[in-house]
Amino acid sequence: MRSSKNPLPELTTCLSPALLHTHDVCNSIVVIIDVLRATSTIAAAIKNGAKSVIPVDSIADCIKLGNQMEVITAGERDGKIAEGLTYGNTPFQYTEEFIKGKTLVLTTTNGTKLLHIALAENAKSIITGSFPNLSAVCEYVVLQKQNVVLACAAWKDKVNIEDTLFAGAIINRIKEHFFINCDSSQIAESLYNQASEDVFTFMEMKNASHFHRLINFGLENDIRFCLTEDIANVLVIYKDGRLVKGSSPRPSPILFTEGEGKGEDGSE
Amino acid sequence: MRSSKNPLPELTTCLSPALLHTHDVCNSIVVIIDVLRATSTIAAAIKNGAKSVIPVDSIADCIKLGNQMEVITAGERDGKIAEGLTYGNTPFQYTEEFIKGKTLVLTTTNGTKLLHIALAENAKSIITGSFPNLSAVCEYVVLQKQNVVLACAAWKDKVNIEDTLFAGAIINRIKEHFFINCDSSQIAESLYNQASEDVFTFMEMKNASHFHRLINFGLENDIRFCLTEDIANVLVIYKDGRLVKGSSPRPSPILFTEGEGKGEDGSE
Repeated sequence: MRSSKNPLPELTTCLSPALLHTHDVCNSIVVIIDVLRATSTIAAAIKNGAKSVIPVDSIADCIKLGNQMEVITAGERDGKIAEGLTYGNTPFQYTEEFIKGKTLVLTTTNGTKLLHIALAENAKSIITGSFPNLSAVCEYVVLQKQNVVLACAAWKDKVNIEDTLFAGAIINRIKEHFFINCDSSQIAESLYNQASEDVFTFMEMKNASHFHRLINFGLENDIRFCLTEDIANVLVIYKDGRLVKGSSPRPSPILFTEGEGKGEDGSE
Repeated sequence: MRSSKNPLPELTTCLSPALLHTHDVCNSIVVIIDVLRATSTIAAAIKNGAKSVIPVDSIADCIKLGNQMEVITAGERDGKIAEGLTYGNTPFQYTEEFIKGKTLVLTTTNGTKLLHIALAENAKSIITGSFPNLSAVCEYVVLQKQNVVLACAAWKDKVNIEDTLFAGAIINRIKEHFFINCDSSQIAESLYNQASEDVFTFMEMKNASHFHRLINFGLENDIRFCLTEDIANVLVIYKDGRLVKGSSPRPSPILFTEGEGKGEDGSE
């Protein structure tokens, strides 16, 4: 319930899983952000018709589920398909031809860890976000009219540029719809404002650590996909242990007019 | 020891005490940053001749030390001098006339907590930093040629703009002397580059949460002091439970060529 004194729901940004305890998770929608590459690849798979994605935090769990169920097992370590698994983390793998109707079990470390913390802290609901499904995330959280935590998966708890930038991109689009009293959100949006012209080049210039890690694995095309807005624009929501396609809210064109619009999306 | 492959010491930025475990504290100089107002006030007191500052994390401990020793006890809660203590956190209190030769016991929550974590993790050495002693901090860490962690005290573990900006100000000045592979450092410097023309106005525009808290307490002048570079330019180092004046390293003109006012307060 929002108080009458403050008619807008609150939005905060959590720059690392190790900071989630400072947020009001149990009264919020939590947006899990793991731009390079987990939540981007998940958006691609769901957009292309995957029945669901089951995120697990270890190769062993991935293999175990693969033995128990008819699923695609996927995950990488050091830029290569992990031993015992069949596919990698690249979003280009998950075309409609390949993934439609199938279940993907994906092992990711940072994103899955964060998701588990959010579950343990009783998040009201959990969705995943990345540049490829930016608009779907924005529309959903605005129409829900509930508090939101933008939760960056980071890298082994270390704040990273790409997840921070994506939080900033969301804030930049929808800030008029929320009460924001959170320095991390201001920092994220400021960073995004500096980067928005060309996020790829910004990451390169700023020597973003994970960016360079992936470039060194020859994964430049993956990065470009992961930084492309709305290339797999689908709502991904966590339900009963799986990430599935959410019902898209009705299109909300007012969100995306230049110079931004009022919160008049609601007839509720 | 630095490896021959990488001749520069490493610098990282820690945006919150809750992230300190991701840094190599025991091989680093840790710079404790609590811009509003602890480390700024400490710089003022030490610059003006305080024998030492003893940071404690509770009012009770502050009162206890006050009963045991001939000291000045100080601390605030909600913008007012805390009950049982004699002075507040404002840097303007600590003039030379008032503080010279005396010991100040100051209760601060965020900065002291961070300092204790850094001690527990065996920091190689600990200094405090703030805009009022920016040059002294920069000169010291460059001349030490050791790894550095810029550690932001934040606000109850929440990342804040002012401490991040100060980390960015340091990086902006001395980055050529360090190997930096740390997204938080890049974020901090990017933020500082946006703010450096007028840090006060930037904080106001960005609705920095602690800035507004202090403004609401009528403490605008305190904030202006705390955002003024080199107004109390002294090295503050932690030794045996106390913060004391460090021996300034020799002036290092190479650091301050571009339009810079050098921190040449030290002939010591």
